[in-house]
Amino acid sequence: MLEELKKDVFRANQRLVTSGLVVLTWGNASGFDPESKLMVIKPSGVDYDRMTADDMVVVDLDGKVVEGGLRPSSDTATHLEFYRNFEGIKGAVHTHSVEATAWAQACREIPCYGTTHADTFHGPVPVTRILTEDEVNSAYELNTGRVVVERFRGLEPLAVPGVLVAGHAPFTWGRNPQDAVDHAIALEAIAKMARLTELVHAATPAPGLVQYVGEKHYQRKHGKNAYYGQK
Amino acid sequence: MLEELKKDVFRANQRLVTSGLVVLTWGNASGFDPESKLMVIKPSGVDYDRMTADDMVVVDLDGKVVEGGLRPSSDTATHLEFYRNFEGIKGAVHTHSVEATAWAQACREIPCYGTTHADTFHGPVPVTRILTEDEVNSAYELNTGRVVVERFRGLEPLAVPGVLVAGHAPFTWGRNPQDAVDHAIALEAIAKMARLTELVHAATPAPGLVQYVGEKHYQRKHGKNAYYGQK
Amino acid sequence: MLEELKKDVFRANQRLVTSGLVVLTWGNASGFDPESKLMVIKPSGVDYDRMTADDMVVVDLDGKVVEGGLRPSSDTATHLEFYRNFEGIKGAVHTHSVEATAWAQACREIPCYGTTHADTFHGPVPVTRILTEDEVNSAYELNTGRVVVERFRGLEPLAVPGVLVAGHAPFTWGRNPQDAVDHAIALEAIAKMARLTELVHAATPAPGLVQYVGEKHYQRKHGKNAYYGQK
Amino acid sequence: MLEELKKDVFRANQRLVTSGLVVLTWGNASGFDPESKLMVIKPSGVDYDRMTADDMVVVDLDGKVVEGGLRPSSDTATHLEFYRNFEGIKGAVHTHSVEATAWAQACREIPCYGTTHADTFHGPVPVTRILTEDEVNSAYELNTGRVVVERFRGLEPLAVPGVLVAGHAPFTWGRNPQDAVDHAIALEAIAKMARLTELVHAATPAPGLVQYVGEKHYQRKHGKNAYYGQK
Repeated sequence: MLEELKKDVFRANQRLVTSGLVVLTWGNASGFDPESKLMVIKPSGVDYDRMTADDMVVVDLDGKVVEGGLRPSSDTATHLEFYRNFEGIKGAVHTHSVEATAWAQACREIPCYGTTHADTFHGPVPVTRILTEDEVNSAYELNTGRVVVERFRGLEPLAVPGVLVAGHAPFTWGRNPQDAVDHAIALEAIAKMARLTELVHAATPAPGLVQYVGEKHYQRKHGKNAYYGQK
Repeated sequence: MLEELKKDVFRANQRLVTSGLVVLTWGNASGFDPESKLMVIKPSGVDYDRMTADDMVVVDLDGKVVEGGLRPSSDTATHLEFYRNFEGIKGAVHTHSVEATAWAQACREIPCYGTTHADTFHGPVPVTRILTEDEVNSAYELNTGRVVVERFRGLEPLAVPGVLVAGHAPFTWGRNPQDAVDHAIALEAIAKMARLTELVHAATPAPGLVQYVGEKHYQRKHGKNAYYGQK
Repeated sequence: MLEELKKDVFRANQRLVTSGLVVLTWGNASGFDPESKLMVIKPSGVDYDRMTADDMVVVDLDGKVVEGGLRPSSDTATHLEFYRNFEGIKGAVHTHSVEATAWAQACREIPCYGTTHADTFHGPVPVTRILTEDEVNSAYELNTGRVVVERFRGLEPLAVPGVLVAGHAPFTWGRNPQDAVDHAIALEAIAKMARLTELVHAATPAPGLVQYVGEKHYQRKHGKNAYYGQK
Repeated sequence: MLEELKKDVFRANQRLVTSGLVVLTWGNASGFDPESKLMVIKPSGVDYDRMTADDMVVVDLDGKVVEGGLRPSSDTATHLEFYRNFEGIKGAVHTHSVEATAWAQACREIPCYGTTHADTFHGPVPVTRILTEDEVNSAYELNTGRVVVERFRGLEPLAVPGVLVAGHAPFTWGRNPQDAVDHAIALEAIAKMARLTELVHAATPAPGLVQYVGEKHYQRKHGKNAYYGQK
């Protein structure tokens, strides 16, 4: 059942680890098949080293396990909420990647500071509101999906392919599982660039190198009488 | 003697290196067997490259070497103090991992800023007091363990599986050696996220990208007349 | 056609990935053959994993594809502007490497803070002005090259082998494609060092370690009665 | 001639690369044989990939090449000044490692903030004065060694096995080439920890995670009704 999608979701989960976005078991990727309306997702809390494509769990849009011997990711209800509401989405990813998570924990959206951001996100990376105590204490994972969907009123999910859940971490999505992973990688880079941009912009310049030392170094390597290297 | 535990402790020590928490010989992992009341620990100052499971040293709860040709870790007395006092602990780890050590050196506990933290630590990551001069000059390693135990009065060690020793570095523990390594990895990630959260929260936004450049980049890749890529 | 140059450009593109400067498909390297006045460049948006030397695209100085089945990099017109204007340049590189991009996004030139900088760049790393809306909306990539050339009036491109395009990212160049990659690697290191130099210079010292703890640690490892390690 | 020392110096140079302290050709390691009073050092500007142990260059204490077909490191005169003046030193290393270089560029000594520092350096990591214009314009590399030796009046080089040359970068040394590399690795870690310690100490705490979210996350993984993972 859905063998190709299972392989694809498995590879997407592996890529989260090899790209450095996930440590331990802190992340999950899923894929959606619009015809059968079934989702394939990582099992919960399983070591990435021991996982195989066959361990992927198939669930229907109500979260009922249709195939698979393992319990699906504890974030299953969040992923399903995306597929039920975001037109055209066929892959979703959740990580606790460090730079994006810092913005989520600071409850700040990521402003667009450059073309790297604009190449992937059409506008700032949104941050949700904090869930209420009631939302947390009943159907927490579903309500996490709901505050994301609420935040996206008036936004186009395929043009803004990710979100920061306040106090938690990022979710991204895309036209397929690999696309969602690409967006998770892009988001982590964008988050780091934005942090550094603010730092560099607000920084106080230090005293520069005295000119004669700089000149000496440039000339010993590139000048007429250069003596660095072998030529 | 305790062959399985030795292998497990050896693997835990190796994982400290492969996960980037330990450089040179700055770290050690141990395991505890509650039946025999014996601890297995890394030998002191031995290169990780040359170590084998057979180099692991077995000591009793008084620190007497029961088996092994090498001197045990210089932090042996600290580990033993944990096993004597923390119910249910069967693995312990010490590293000088950079981000957690920075908090230890700044003598600050790590506040809970997000769910990544809450998934592993029930409350802030505590920091000990500085040892007195007397505590340092006699039985230093034992007294290091004692200030940790002192700090944990009223806390549940299995719910708060790690500590920052002020001016020194982190220790973590768990239900077995691998669990203690998992907590060392989690602590390093949490420490970095906490530092970045404070930075991002206090940062002054920089001027955003001019809108028409962002629009151009988004459209050349995703718009109707996109010309990025091969399609 | 230009088989050696194609291999060289292909290897330069691969090095951008292995050196960590490029994630996903965010970068490109080109090479120029002054005799035939032809440029070899990476195809647009192709996965680095699947690329071969034969996928490199050959274009003339007007940007017309002379050989190759794939569309050339979307930044082709920028590279060509360099080769048309910068005497002696035979390789060029574009990346979105994180540290250099942060300076570009903050619209700050990188001051020379040390000999690492002076070994490669003769003077600060310049930043361009922001393109006007007209420049962005017609011939954007060509105009990106033009603001770089404009910024280099009075500068010697081979002595200052790179630039930050404001709001965008770095470009570097050199006497051949590998040289341009070397300069991209150097620029990323210089950008990081400059950021950290300003941080360290402006930082408030923290309270130092109490002296008796430092003394204990030094002596237990190096003193007369040292007990760290195996000797 | 000195075949063992050549191999050892070669391996020390390779370790500088594998440990991430050196990019491109920005670093060198040497070893000293006190009996023959000869130094073995890396050749200048040669790619680490292509280097072999046989490429190491042997020079006498006056800097005359005694064996080797390549030009010795451009920093040869600096290394020799160490061996002429620092009793017991038989290995030396120069890198432009990012964190230590930032302190050198900020012209700040590194204070001792914790036991990681105290385990390797007995006191702060010193920084030299800036060389005068005359010192730079004649016998620059020798004078670099001289300001280091000047800075170490009253210090014990084997107890403080490294220095920051102001505006330039670190040098370390030790009882053999590998020991000098160990000190370069330790210095880079210490420099980073010191920077982060000052940051964490001066930082403004951010608002903490709302308590009920933290509680939910802890309990869903560790509580009585935990549903994370497979058990």
